[in-house]
Amino acid sequence: MTASRIAEAEGTDCLRIFLAAMTELVGRTEDEDCLLREGKPLLAALVARDDWLPAAAATPDSQHYQQHLLHCDPLERFSVVSFVWGPGQATPIHDHGVWGLVGMLRGAESCRNYVWHEGSLAPVGSHLLRAGQVLSLSPRHGDLHAVANAHSDRTSISVHVYGANIGAVARSVFDPATGARKPFVSGYANSDIPNIWDRSEAVRRG
Amino acid sequence: MTASRIAEAEGTDCLRIFLAAMTELVGRTEDEDCLLREGKPLLAALVARDDWLPAAAATPDSQHYQQHLLHCDPLERFSVVSFVWGPGQATPIHDHGVWGLVGMLRGAESCRNYVWHEGSLAPVGSHLLRAGQVLSLSPRHGDLHAVANAHSDRTSISVHVYGANIGAVARSVFDPATGARKPFVSGYANSDIPNIWDRSEAVRRG
Ligand SMILES: [Fe+3]
Ligand SMILES: [Fe+3]
Ligand SMILES: [Mg+2]
Repeated sequence: MTASRIAEAEGTDCLRIFLAAMTELVGRTEDEDCLLREGKPLLAALVARDDWLPAAAATPDSQHYQQHLLHCDPLERFSVVSFVWGPGQATPIHDHGVWGLVGMLRGAESCRNYVWHEGSLAPVGSHLLRAGQVLSLSPRHGDLHAVANAHSDRTSISVHVYGANIGAVARSVFDPATGARKPFVSGYANSDIPNIWDRSEAVRRG
Repeated sequence: MTASRIAEAEGTDCLRIFLAAMTELVGRTEDEDCLLREGKPLLAALVARDDWLPAAAATPDSQHYQQHLLHCDPLERFSVVSFVWGPGQATPIHDHGVWGLVGMLRGAESCRNYVWHEGSLAPVGSHLLRAGQVLSLSPRHGDLHAVANAHSDRTSISVHVYGANIGAVARSVFDPATGARKPFVSGYANSDIPNIWDRSEAVRRG
């Protein structure tokens, strides 16, 4: 079982095992239900522990939430980001356009879901995502939400997997009062990705 | 043809197209001859132009040649590095253990090949690799060589593709006089990899 290998790995090894398993998965199927069903326990194993995220990908900004790229599949079949919330930071209502898995690594976030109702955006419930929990998103089932750090006094961090190079997806944000749509392409906060592939010390130790 | 897409792409796009094509290739075959045969024209297209290597991966060190990781496949089926030579820098005689493609991006390097002969290492010819040229390596055909910057007054850079996470491969270096073997695991010079996946500006421009 890959999930138990992720659970038992040393430090950053768990992220490498996770990325290997995701790469194997997207090479085997394009079926969204299968990707979400098989990806979810992998991400759950990854966010069940909080000893592996490189410090550079865990740093909040004083003004805005930060989306750090951890890995992009070269065929853009999936990407993995850390989402770092400073105290009280929040997103507007937004869509995703592709499947997603959100795993809470540290702290908590509150999510409010929306649907279109008679030309307006209507809230349809909200929930708290706590450390260790994972939720899935699909445009087929409605993927409009607004998310916020549930804490006003500390950083929260979630790890997201999306079915594309998410920073380059043409998406939308919405005005809650009018439903007006604005184009949104997130990009990434980081111009450098932590090099998690240098396993040379472990190989030298044998 | 992917090679012509690499040739015609804008700036760093050519590296993304190359990595996508290599990912597709290792997903399709494990046959070494096929990997080398199909990989070679892709790398040739990439090193036919010198407008795409991120500056951080093109910086020499004053003392030693530098191997910068540009991309590691999460299943470790291949990795791509830039090899940056300061003036006059050189490697010892070494092996690789996996297939490799070496493409000369900037400047030139001189390669001297070796074979085992009656318990000693014997040189079997040397050649110059000039900008735009690509050579292939295979342990099946003998892969012992010593390489040096062909220039004593400037930086040279080659781009290498290997059939593994090359920084973590247990390899060997050899004493040319005695043939004595020493274990060698290269690691990587860089703790951060340039994030080449932020295509958001281009998507916003439409
Ligand atoms: Fe979201
Ligand atoms: Fe070599
Ligand atoms: Mg850096």
